[in-house]
Amino acid sequence: MTEKIQCEVFIACSADGFIARTDGDVAWLDNPGYALEGEDFGYYALMDRVDALVMGRNTYDVVRGLGVAWPYGDKAVRVLTHRDIDIPADLAGRVTAMSGTPDEIVEQLAQSGFQRVYIDGGAVIQDFLRAGLISRMIITTIPVLLGSGIRLFGAVEQDVHLKPVAVQHWPNGFVQTEWGFV
Amino acid sequence: MTEKIQCEVFIACSADGFIARTDGDVAWLDNPGYALEGEDFGYYALMDRVDALVMGRNTYDVVRGLGVAWPYGDKAVRVLTHRDIDIPADLAGRVTAMSGTPDEIVEQLAQSGFQRVYIDGGAVIQDFLRAGLISRMIITTIPVLLGSGIRLFGAVEQDVHLKPVAVQHWPNGFVQTEWGFV
Repeated sequence: MTEKIQCEVFIACSADGFIARTDGDVAWLDNPGYALEGEDFGYYALMDRVDALVMGRNTYDVVRGLGVAWPYGDKAVRVLTHRDIDIPADLAGRVTAMSGTPDEIVEQLAQSGFQRVYIDGGAVIQDFLRAGLISRMIITTIPVLLGSGIRLFGAVEQDVHLKPVAVQHWPNGFVQTEWGFV
Repeated sequence: MTEKIQCEVFIACSADGFIARTDGDVAWLDNPGYALEGEDFGYYALMDRVDALVMGRNTYDVVRGLGVAWPYGDKAVRVLTHRDIDIPADLAGRVTAMSGTPDEIVEQLAQSGFQRVYIDGGAVIQDFLRAGLISRMIITTIPVLLGSGIRLFGAVEQDVHLKPVAVQHWPNGFVQTEWGFV
C-alpha cells in the first residue's frame, strides 16, 4: 500500500513562478540581501523529517556539478533517470538510480520502508503533482520578478485545490507558504 | 512631474500565477468555498484610497458584459484603448478612453490632479510594471492550481526586486501579499 508514504515539496520560487532562469541558472538565489544569519527557512527541519529524497536527473547533475561536498549526508537519495548515471563509489549505497511512473516510484519507496520523502526538481515535482502524490508543498517565494525561466508549475489535468497550512515571512523578504491539498 | 502619482495593483491570482483561464474565464474565482461573510479582502479600502482606475480595454469589456451595475460608482475610470469604444451616456464623465505609453498615461493623470490610481487588467499591469511605474502590488493568491491560462506576470527587461510589506491569510485559503518595490 502506498497511501502511507508522504511526499513533500520544499522549493524556492521567484514571485513570478520560476525556479531557475531559462538556462538553469539559480545564482539569483545567492543575492547577499537574502542571507539571514542562522536562518535556514525550515530546510533542516525538512531534512530531519524525511527519510529519503527523490530528485530528477537534472537536479542530481546540478548538485554534482556544484563542486561542493555531497549535501545530503547519509540520507537515501533516489535519482530518477533512464540514462546511464555516474554514481561515485563514496555515494554508492546512499544514491540509487530509479525509473518508473510516480506511482511506481512511490510504491517501490514504500516497499523499501520509506515513509516521508522529499521530492525535488522541477519536472519531478510536476509529474508527482499530476499524479496526485504530493501531500505538502513548502514554497518559499523569493521577492524578485525574473520575467522568464523554468517554471515551478506546469499543466494539470484538472484544477488542484490547495489550502495554506502556514504562512510566514522574513526580514529578507522571503514569503513562505506551506500548502496542503484539499 | 509624475513621480507623485502612486500606481497600485490589486488582483487575484491562482497559486500557479494565472489571473484567468486561457479564454478569459474567471468563474473559478466564484467558488462558494471562497466566500467569507463580510470580508472584502481589502477591496473597499483600496477603492477608498484611489482617486482613479486605469484599466485595459479587455477588462472594460468584461465588466460591461457582466450584466451587473457599473461597479466603480463615481470613481474616475480611464480605459486604455486604441479602438472605438462604446461608453454609455450614464457613464460619460466618469469613464474616458485614453491611449499612450504608461509614462504618458501617468503624466496625463498627474496633470488632471490624480494622486493614487488603481491599475487593473493583465496587459496594463505588465506594461506599467515594465515601465517601473507601479509602487505597490496587492496580490491575493487563490488556493488553486489552474495549470494554464492568462498570466499575471510577463517578461521584464531586468530583474525587478520586491519586498513584502504585509502578508495575511484567511480561513478560506486566500493568501495576500502586499509587495513594495526595492
